Amino acid sequence: MRIYDIILKKRNGGILTGEEIAYFIDGYVDGSIPDYQASALCMAIFFRGMTDDETAALTDCMARSGDRIDLSRFGDLTVDKHSTGGVGDKTTLIVAPIVASLGGKVAKMSGRGLGHTGGTVDKLESIPGMRVTMEREAFLRQVEEIGIAVIGQSGNLTPADKKLYALRDVTATVDSIPLITSSVMSKKIAAGSKSIVLDVKAGSGAFMKTPEDARTLARSMVAIGKACGRRMAALITDMSRPLGEAVGNTLEVVEAVRVLRGAAKGDLYDVCVALAAEMTMLFAGVSRAEAESRVVDAIESGKAFRKMQEWIAAQGGDSAWLVRAQYGDGAALAVPVVAPADGYLTNMDAEAIGGAAVILGAGRSKKEDDIDHSAGILVSKKTGDAVKKGQVLATLYTNDAAAIEPATQRYLGALTIGPEPPKATGLIFDIIR
Amino acid sequence: MRIYDIILKKRNGGILTGEEIAYFIDGYVDGSIPDYQASALCMAIFFRGMTDDETAALTDCMARSGDRIDLSRFGDLTVDKHSTGGVGDKTTLIVAPIVASLGGKVAKMSGRGLGHTGGTVDKLESIPGMRVTMEREAFLRQVEEIGIAVIGQSGNLTPADKKLYALRDVTATVDSIPLITSSVMSKKIAAGSKSIVLDVKAGSGAFMKTPEDARTLARSMVAIGKACGRRMAALITDMSRPLGEAVGNTLEVVEAVRVLRGAAKGDLYDVCVALAAEMTMLFAGVSRAEAESRVVDAIESGKAFRKMQEWIAAQGGDSAWLVRAQYGDGAALAVPVVAPADGYLTNMDAEAIGGAAVILGAGRSKKEDDIDHSAGILVSKKTGDAVKKGQVLATLYTNDAAAIEPATQRYLGALTIGPEPPKATGLIFDIIR
Repeated sequence: MRIYDIILKKRNGGILTGEEIAYFIDGYVDGSIPDYQASALCMAIFFRGMTDDETAALTDCMARSGDRIDLSRFGDLTVDKHSTGGVGDKTTLIVAPIVASLGGKVAKMSGRGLGHTGGTVDKLESIPGMRVTMEREAFLRQVEEIGIAVIGQSGNLTPADKKLYALRDVTATVDSIPLITSSVMSKKIAAGSKSIVLDVKAGSGAFMKTPEDARTLARSMVAIGKACGRRMAALITDMSRPLGEAVGNTLEVVEAVRVLRGAAKGDLYDVCVALAAEMTMLFAGVSRAEAESRVVDAIESGKAFRKMQEWIAAQGGDSAWLVRAQYGDGAALAVPVVAPADGYLTNMDAEAIGGAAVILGAGRSKKEDDIDHSAGILVSKKTGDAVKKGQVLATLYTNDAAAIEPATQRYLGALTIGPEPPKATGLIFDIIR
Repeated sequence: MRIYDIILKKRNGGILTGEEIAYFIDGYVDGSIPDYQASALCMAIFFRGMTDDETAALTDCMARSGDRIDLSRFGDLTVDKHSTGGVGDKTTLIVAPIVASLGGKVAKMSGRGLGHTGGTVDKLESIPGMRVTMEREAFLRQVEEIGIAVIGQSGNLTPADKKLYALRDVTATVDSIPLITSSVMSKKIAAGSKSIVLDVKAGSGAFMKTPEDARTLARSMVAIGKACGRRMAALITDMSRPLGEAVGNTLEVVEAVRVLRGAAKGDLYDVCVALAAEMTMLFAGVSRAEAESRVVDAIESGKAFRKMQEWIAAQGGDSAWLVRAQYGDGAALAVPVVAPADGYLTNMDAEAIGGAAVILGAGRSKKEDDIDHSAGILVSKKTGDAVKKGQVLATLYTNDAAAIEPATQRYLGALTIGPEPPKATGLIFDIIR
């Protein structure tokens, strides 16, 4: 077998065999296939696509390229959630304790943020004392004892994906459905949960700009997950504006606590209930109505928030802080952004708002950057709201006075204010099962 | 400017600016742009193509990437010829002395053979004493004095093409019209002739398998040559069978001499007359009819062959040997291949016949291989001919007894013998000016 022939076959629209895909992945990981052939193949895949069988084989090879977490001791109760990434997306902090309080086993590895989207691990580190690294056995023991553990990615999970993603990132071959699918799903498969619910974001703040593109990606990921023996569901949700009201690490933890304590209903609450209900359907094998009723009860009864406190305490975090913390804690500066004119907020560029939060210190432009956990934005007015000149649209939090002016400009530049209210759009566009 | 953005733009179907193309070529040559980004861009170009403006800019950048031969002292009389490569293609040995005998200035750098197609330099080295390397000034002086010099590629011509071609060769991005065009034309532009005639081969023994594909490539090369200020013409000629009767270095020189002395009329003669006439039209500015009449006269009068002798002698070759040499000289073995059945020769796979010649020692599988100049094949029956069982189809010449059996099998495997004569196909499919 020669990698040249594999590139040529795909370039000419052929369907690669499982052996050919394994030859590519194994050779790329062991270094016998150089970057320049891998990037040519990725570009050919970008143009020619892959069948579900090819994508499943690619996912499987990448999942097997490194360590895999063995969660078999938990039977069919393990459940994972993955979001394709958005601005203000703190759903993991909310749905993970909900499903754990309902008997699901959440053994989750999460990432750090880069660019305009935040990472769950960064958010957790806002909590005083919280540890996000753990030995494998301690991690599994915590899942066994309290049903939930969330840590940063550790060990040598999917080295094939790490290497290939880094290459795709510099060769304009990231946004290919089969390559995204295999990248996401290989990590989820290697992470071992039986059930996986995907939150595929669509809109200006997401990778997929339209619900139709998001649906195509969701269908592919659900099909590949099922082909790998997992129970799957995917929600297509709106990311044309930030989810909820908080953008930034501490701010988002505070908002998550508000939702879990039943103090905040709105788009974030609705998405979290839908995600947690899908997860509960899968691990508990109950109807959608029954799952949703259990989820709502977990919030209303306080059971879900108690599970969050138990989880945070188990990882060394200050669970009393969760109750005490307020928007703006730790930020020396709190500066309002006010409306420049009367009208309606007709559009928010979520990606630009994420960019404003990065300017304030909430995120990283480069992997090595430090972040200010207290920095971020509290959004007061969202798409569809009427605004009056001088009214507060958002509050910027930071410890960097020099960031205020550019962040304000960036934030205002992300908004469109018009004379008429915009057409209402949905929040949850579709569910793919 | 970032190479990532250039890859993305081309991937998305955008048209690159001259600055972007220069940024790519300059960066790739100086090593600041790595192979893996260059290969991704080449694959994107394969799928998206390039406009003539983009291809002209790419050609120009590559032509400027190294030395350029200054032929300005010869005014508009310089004329070059390029063949896309075929089996038994010895046209340079014939047309170069013809046009030099008619006042054209042929300052030609030729390549060595690799794979199933031979190289002019290898053919010239069959001639005892012949030198194919020369200092630049001596080369130009010879062109000035006798109108013709043909040497191997020397100096640092188009390093961008050398590096990019080596990459394309291992990443399945060779057969892209704009990339082929820029590779061929950058070398021709750097080589400095005012007029360039292309012989674009179509058929089983050629890179382009159909006349339509060959026509597309020819149109592109003619357009780009004109955009770079050159006088251009291209013939589309048949390569579904070997050209002429000889395949192999000494054998081909002998056949070239036969054509130049008026002793062989046939497909090779016809193609050479057509090529030389196009070249003469361009450098002399005469009509096609006038050009063809001058070419035929140059052969009939012996003027063209005398020019060949003068040229060979000027480069140290034994010009008397040209008259003396016979088919089979230097080969210890001459073995006939006979027809296995009665019928008509309906097809010849020219590439496989080239492969049989390589087995006999006439060509190289790898750059480093030595070749046996005397080895090769004399083809007696060509497509369309009636054959009788046991009749000689070809004679294999070699000094390697072990090669006879596999070469015979390869040769017979290249032929199709059927009960009916095949439909006649053309020899010169088209002329693009």
